[in-house]
Amino acid sequence: MSTQERAEVWQKLFADADEEIVIGEAAVVDHDAITHLACWKPPADIGRYRNLRVVISVGAGVDQVPPLPEGVNLSRTLSPRIDQMVCEWVVMSALMLHRNMVTYIDQASRGIWKPHANLMTRETRIGVMGMGRVGLPVARCLKNMGFHVSGFSRSGRPNDGITTYGARDMDVFLADTNLLICLLPLTDDTRGLMSDAFFNKLPMGSRLVHAGRGAQIDMTALRSALDQGRIESAMLDVTNPEPLPENHWAWADPRIIITPHIASVTDYEDGARHVLEVIDADRNGRIIPGLVDSTLGY
Amino acid sequence: MSTQERAEVWQKLFADADEEIVIGEAAVVDHDAITHLACWKPPADIGRYRNLRVVISVGAGVDQVPPLPEGVNLSRTLSPRIDQMVCEWVVMSALMLHRNMVTYIDQASRGIWKPHANLMTRETRIGVMGMGRVGLPVARCLKNMGFHVSGFSRSGRPNDGITTYGARDMDVFLADTNLLICLLPLTDDTRGLMSDAFFNKLPMGSRLVHAGRGAQIDMTALRSALDQGRIESAMLDVTNPEPLPENHWAWADPRIIITPHIASVTDYEDGARHVLEVIDADRNGRIIPGLVDSTLGY
Repeated sequence: MSTQERAEVWQKLFADADEEIVIGEAAVVDHDAITHLACWKPPADIGRYRNLRVVISVGAGVDQVPPLPEGVNLSRTLSPRIDQMVCEWVVMSALMLHRNMVTYIDQASRGIWKPHANLMTRETRIGVMGMGRVGLPVARCLKNMGFHVSGFSRSGRPNDGITTYGARDMDVFLADTNLLICLLPLTDDTRGLMSDAFFNKLPMGSRLVHAGRGAQIDMTALRSALDQGRIESAMLDVTNPEPLPENHWAWADPRIIITPHIASVTDYEDGARHVLEVIDADRNGRIIPGLVDSTLGY
Repeated sequence: MSTQERAEVWQKLFADADEEIVIGEAAVVDHDAITHLACWKPPADIGRYRNLRVVISVGAGVDQVPPLPEGVNLSRTLSPRIDQMVCEWVVMSALMLHRNMVTYIDQASRGIWKPHANLMTRETRIGVMGMGRVGLPVARCLKNMGFHVSGFSRSGRPNDGITTYGARDMDVFLADTNLLICLLPLTDDTRGLMSDAFFNKLPMGSRLVHAGRGAQIDMTALRSALDQGRIESAMLDVTNPEPLPENHWAWADPRIIITPHIASVTDYEDGARHVLEVIDADRNGRIIPGLVDSTLGY
């Protein structure tokens, strides 16, 4: 519980549900009494909590959580509101790149009124990497707007009539995409994914929307791809490193627009409700919501 | 026919349709042979074309066309592609204001990584002024994304389940809106509409998307509204004057993002097809497409 405001919301919702909650590690008196631990990143000495059953990440991602002791489950906070917020940010960003906003914002900073031709929606070939709870609604929404949309996921299972490529067809997927959206979780497979070799598989003049995890992108490779015209413009909500230091070159690059990891922000009430649902499911022998498969990492 | 490229597209499509076309006034030999005139703004000496039947504006707006001689009809170029492009730009702009992009773009220019809270979609109350061919799909699309959406039109006729206010209820409409979208045509009623008195009817901290016509907005009133916190941020695709001069204060104002009247650009093929359809309808006694009601002005 990092903030006072969040603590108050959680205390009220736990009281309403007749559940006990201890806010902050410093307040823990009896470690054996703790069965569920909600946090962004668990403490290094997690072994002290001998009766721990579930660690609940307060975010949708769990890449920050190290392997847990045997028998302890991991749950990530899922909420339709988080999904919707990310979907909004991604649709906005895809439209901004499609409609040359990177150029217009740069021109505006110099007082230049100069229209440019722009692609019709059907000429923008959007590729969505990660066809899960956010990727699928993003793909649907953009398809409804007239864009050509395809998907990429580990399984390559087609979704809702949207052509979806699997891991072995990544090269075909990238060659067929000129506006790439990354929504992948951070796993061993996706760490450092966006490298020189990766960008070189995209058509010249492609655009990039990154709302996955910062560690998936090699920022130097991105700069080369921009300089070579492989990538024309990019919207990044996650960066590498993150937060991006004030003097980082990417801030000043007119081809990039950066937002500070705000595509989703966990709503305090949603977070508390998720934890109460996990406790209830766990106590009653049901599968806990947001259970993470430790093999897949999401 | 202002450009060579457009002339070539039109000549080809007219040849395919077995229709004669004269490109440019200088090329007109026999004024009496001209029955249909496609232009942005008709020539001052339009009376020379004694057999003129229809003037066809190559844009969707006709506010630049002065009253025509008795018996000459006016048509505006309508195209689903134009409508779709404006819809895209407006949805993008509404999302940008909803998601604080004005602030993030300003922060990025100074290398500042600083997240801000943002409203949930249901807290953003979008008001769409002008519920026509663009306004209605914009309203539908934003409603589907979870926003609270209402409309305003001269008639106040409800559309597709979207509450729509009429002229006499403008004050109620504005008081209920915190993200205002203007898509109105320029008429005597809407010229100078967005004044100090108008902005004062919006709740504090409102946001503005303007894709109507520049002459509808008093830029000094906009600046006052921004300074008073009545308006928090704005996206303008049209300005007053237009084009906006390089040294205009609005370019440098971090609360405003300006694009150079690019929400729609007429596709050359769409324009030529519209003219051919007008000629065909007119010749066969059908109502011509895009016919403008000279009383309403659209």
